[in-house]
Amino acid sequence: MQESLHELQAIIYRTIPITRHMQFTAADYGERGLRLAAPLQENKNLFGTAFAGSLNTLVTLSGWGLLWFILRELGVEGDIVIQDSRCQYLVPVCEDFSAFCSRPGAAQIARFSQTLQQRGRARLEVFSEIRQHDSVAVAFQGRYVVQTRS
Amino acid sequence: MQESLHELQAIIYRTIPITRHMQFTAADYGERGLRLAAPLQENKNLFGTAFAGSLNTLVTLSGWGLLWFILRELGVEGDIVIQDSRCQYLVPVCEDFSAFCSRPGAAQIARFSQTLQQRGRARLEVFSEIRQHDSVAVAFQGRYVVQTRS
Repeated sequence: MQESLHELQAIIYRTIPITRHMQFTAADYGERGLRLAAPLQENKNLFGTAFAGSLNTLVTLSGWGLLWFILRELGVEGDIVIQDSRCQYLVPVCEDFSAFCSRPGAAQIARFSQTLQQRGRARLEVFSEIRQHDSVAVAFQGRYVVQTRS
Repeated sequence: MQESLHELQAIIYRTIPITRHMQFTAADYGERGLRLAAPLQENKNLFGTAFAGSLNTLVTLSGWGLLWFILRELGVEGDIVIQDSRCQYLVPVCEDFSAFCSRPGAAQIARFSQTLQQRGRARLEVFSEIRQHDSVAVAFQGRYVVQTRS
């Protein structure tokens, strides 16, 4: 698992130059979902809290990364693109932060997989959160489209 | 006006380190709204098109910058924070890009200004777009909260 996390991080760092400056890390992946982490220092805004652009980037990447893991588990090669997102910034983030993208339920993944096999293209909606202490600081809902590679 | 654009850019570059790596510029401001521009090269993703994180960051900053101009015109000192946003990624962006945040109508700004004076806190919703040729490539709707400084 650790190896796959390193691979995901390396792919993102190599192909999306701006993410190197954010210094995020692919921290953890398991049955419940994927966690990406980022330091405050490199991602702060003029209030010294986390910059909305960096928060949004991290949740967006957490969704992309979760889809990357799901495709790999399904044995499918495909391109993953975000289609739309909603992001609520509820509490200022005052420390190093992490985004946790929850794995959708088995039924939702099964439908996604079936559509992908039938049409070569399918959508999946995921939810990601950045928590601070006991509060949700950022709530993200993102819809991604996957197109299989022929 | 050029001086204010340089000031806005300098404030953002100085206080939000990650934006320096995006190499965005505060390109234009007028009655219709604010335009921020960014080069593709520094903001590309693994498909060689513009990275969703950078697109979202640029539209988010365009809303923030527009509010900065509006507050200045109202003669108010206040802190501007994004509260929530919706972002649609409609077409891949294959070249240098710019986000244009439209100035809300006079009535909306008047209500915003009145609430701000009365309560020291007010919300404003703005719309920003990244266009490519004749199409809207990214459509953004953001709600910002301003708190006056006492």
